[in-house]
Parts: sequence; structure tokens; C-alpha cells
Amino acid sequence: MTFDVLVEVRLKQGVADPPGATLERALPALGFGGVSGVRVGKAIRMSVDATDQAEAEALVAAMCDRLLANPVIEETVINVAEAVAAQ
Amino acid sequence: MTFDVLVEVRLKQGVADPPGATLERALPALGFGGVSGVRVGKAIRMSVDATDQAEAEALVAAMCDRLLANPVIEETVINVAEAVAAQ
Repeated sequence: MTFDVLVEVRLKQGVADPPGATLERALPALGFGGVSGVRVGKAIRMSVDATDQAEAEALVAAMCDRLLANPVIEETVINVAEAVAAQ
Repeated sequence: MTFDVLVEVRLKQGVADPPGATLERALPALGFGGVSGVRVGKAIRMSVDATDQAEAEALVAAMCDRLLANPVIEETVINVAEAVAAQ
């Protein structure tokens, strides 16, 4: 079975995020007030073959540990959903 | 009211994605087979003040058009949720 995966890789709290800070300064200048806490992370999408959802989640968690994220400064949120037929 | 926002900014289909291609080549070498269609985008989180969810979504859509994404090569997915009390 094929699963559609979305991994959000984001900086841990307290880790400096210059792109986020730049957006946060730029938004009010464009007329967007009331925005705070802007943080920029990565959104990694992929298709994974696995026998069930639990196996897919375990595979992706292992990928995060080994390649997709730096566990010293980043944390990950994993979303796994069964792929719709055509894919 | 404050809303927690997650904007996924991803490259449109057909736009070259070298970071995604690099991950896709590296994963089998680490023992992760059965992975395809790896695409790397941005996950932007922020807190937005608005009177209701519809206003928050409209605000964020305008931010995407003006600053967060390049509509020529990128598309966005916007998630807005009411912030939990403490924030």
C-alpha cells in the first residue's frame, strides 16, 4: 500500500530563526498587523510503500532521525495518510 | 481572538526541486526503499489576531500573495485553528 506523507521539520523553541524574524518585520510594513511568532520550517512530502499505517509512520520516523532533521535543533511532526487510488 | 496558522508553501508540479531529488537519491542508500515523489517546501507558522476564522484565513491568503509565496512557481495550503488559551 502507498501512503502520502507530510513531514513538518521545525526549529525547536529558542533556536534563532532569521527567516522568520525577517518575515515578522516585513509583514507590518505591508499592512499586516497583529502577526507574531513567525517561524519558518520545512514541509517535506513523499509517497512511501508500507504494509500498514503503523509501519509507514515508523519508517518515516526513522528517516527523520537519520536524514530529514537535525535532532539537536529541530523537531518533526509526521502526518501519514493512505494515498488515494490513482497514485 | 488569536489564531494559530500553518502555511505550507510548496513548489508547483513540474517545477524542479533539487533538495527533494537529493533526498530521494539519499534515502535508498540509507536502507529506506519504496520512497518516491519527495518534494521539499516551506512550513510557515505564525499567530494572527483576527475577529473570526474567516477573517484570519483571508488575511493569511493576502500575506501569501504579497510576501510568503511566489505564485509563479509555488502554491500554498493554509491551515487556521483557534489558539488554545495560554497563548
